[in-house]
Amino acid sequence: MASDRASGEDSLIARYFKPIATDPGAFGLDDDAAIISPSGDDIVVTTDAIVEGVHFLADDPPDTVARKALRVNLSDLAAKGAGCAGFVLTLALRNADEAWLTAFARALGEDAELFACPLLGGDTVSTPGPLTVSITAFGRVAVGKMVHRSGAKPGDRIMVTGTIGDAALGLAMLKGTLAASAAARAMLVERYRVPQPRTALAIAVRDRASAAMDVSDGLAGDLAKLCAASGISAVIDAPSIPKSDAATELLSRGMVSFETLVSGGDDYEILCTVPAAHAEAFVDEAQRRGVAVREIGTVIAGNDPPAFLDGQGREIRLSRLSYSHF
Amino acid sequence: MASDRASGEDSLIARYFKPIATDPGAFGLDDDAAIISPSGDDIVVTTDAIVEGVHFLADDPPDTVARKALRVNLSDLAAKGAGCAGFVLTLALRNADEAWLTAFARALGEDAELFACPLLGGDTVSTPGPLTVSITAFGRVAVGKMVHRSGAKPGDRIMVTGTIGDAALGLAMLKGTLAASAAARAMLVERYRVPQPRTALAIAVRDRASAAMDVSDGLAGDLAKLCAASGISAVIDAPSIPKSDAATELLSRGMVSFETLVSGGDDYEILCTVPAAHAEAFVDEAQRRGVAVREIGTVIAGNDPPAFLDGQGREIRLSRLSYSHF
Repeated sequence: MASDRASGEDSLIARYFKPIATDPGAFGLDDDAAIISPSGDDIVVTTDAIVEGVHFLADDPPDTVARKALRVNLSDLAAKGAGCAGFVLTLALRNADEAWLTAFARALGEDAELFACPLLGGDTVSTPGPLTVSITAFGRVAVGKMVHRSGAKPGDRIMVTGTIGDAALGLAMLKGTLAASAAARAMLVERYRVPQPRTALAIAVRDRASAAMDVSDGLAGDLAKLCAASGISAVIDAPSIPKSDAATELLSRGMVSFETLVSGGDDYEILCTVPAAHAEAFVDEAQRRGVAVREIGTVIAGNDPPAFLDGQGREIRLSRLSYSHF
Repeated sequence: MASDRASGEDSLIARYFKPIATDPGAFGLDDDAAIISPSGDDIVVTTDAIVEGVHFLADDPPDTVARKALRVNLSDLAAKGAGCAGFVLTLALRNADEAWLTAFARALGEDAELFACPLLGGDTVSTPGPLTVSITAFGRVAVGKMVHRSGAKPGDRIMVTGTIGDAALGLAMLKGTLAASAAARAMLVERYRVPQPRTALAIAVRDRASAAMDVSDGLAGDLAKLCAASGISAVIDAPSIPKSDAATELLSRGMVSFETLVSGGDDYEILCTVPAAHAEAFVDEAQRRGVAVREIGTVIAGNDPPAFLDGQGREIRLSRLSYSHF
């Protein structure tokens, strides 16, 4: 990014993004590159893009688009046990709409401050296609301490933060295929538009979890990925999966299925496995940090896909595990 | 990135990109994040996206799209004096075309090896819009040694690598607005499609240059940016600007203007300023490393835009300095 007198792209960057790029490593976006200073830690790198019409809707407010773009990346860092170090932004825009960019940049700056994750640089390009926001985020974790998908062992407890399935219901409401009370609708739509990355849990994940990932494509599919990476299987007690009151009511009224909740995307909660000896301490620590966490099952040996059992111990068959782009 | 049995996106990543992600920090693309190990150096971060129909053409071969996407970023690292450490890739695709992806991934892997810049991770998303390839690349440079745009001082020599304007002519040929011999056309089109990042010059830039940037939006505009960032002005001897034989011939036949050459984008050469006392050593070192470099002018005090003088010392007026997206 660069601010200068010669180019529309550069004046756009100077106007909207320079004011929020206050980290010394960003060089005020006046240079071609940013610096992450060495701290002796491993630098954790994650990248996630959101596309208009795919990950957010064309009429989603610009501030929620900004927050979602950053937060889906912060969710990954938290699930890996890493603290935030900064991010770079690539914005592909059809046009430079002043009102949109003002609201987008202001929200991005607020979130960068809220999560102590500074904007370091980026690229702004024109596109004839949908608005696309691609963010690469950086975290720090002590050398070798990043939490992988692959460390789960039989006997470990399976934990998940927050509530599952709300975002998928919020999207269904925005698409007009599901209805609920105004209050429930507002909550579910907010869950779709503005994820809550569990950054407060990063240290506990780093210190206690044997494996972890964030739930972005659906709990069922993402758990299957964690099992495959760890070479284990899992048994899940379906009634234990944390649900919002709104989701519980829609489920009890038969308006949505269990499968919708556990195969829908955009939860951005942390799924992790914790050795039994650490489970209580992990839950306590989460509570102290204000993050709701629930034990939903147990890791078992084997290569079968995870089994979801109902209140009577019968397996719930799922025809679809997760959202896939292709 | 993640490889698993459940999702089309993940099997796409496993099939095409896992084989080229051989760096230990990539974890075989089986995890949600990558690691850059600490070396005590500053980590230099740069990000550049290329969009179909904007930065490359819809019928450009997939291998050239891959190379361009990576090389425009490597060009930035070289201009900052940094060695390569790795990159992450975000690919927004309309569909998963097997032949296209095979050729794209193979070329990306070849370039990653050629430039010792490993693929560390990424994200693959679907888009209804143009193919967009966004890369964030990482380099290493000794703490505080990154070369900025802002260090040029009056008296410094202005240097540029390679030849200027070829890529803009290549694009004009692909668009059918310019014609030349088959050999000239092939060379110019290649210059547009496959930049040659001057990574071999990174150490010399780091040790000798007072300011540097890569020329991506046009020499005239990019020099104006460097001058603005450094708070200086410049006098350029236009005949000294290095041109290919093909560009020289098209210029002499009146088929293209000087302005086209110096305001056209996609050169991806290094523009730098070198204190007079280091100029000879810098040129010698470039020669030893096989990079053509030419002195084109001198930094002067002042805030005027850079002046381009013809062979008779008259200023050449430019109505347009560079490519701009907005």
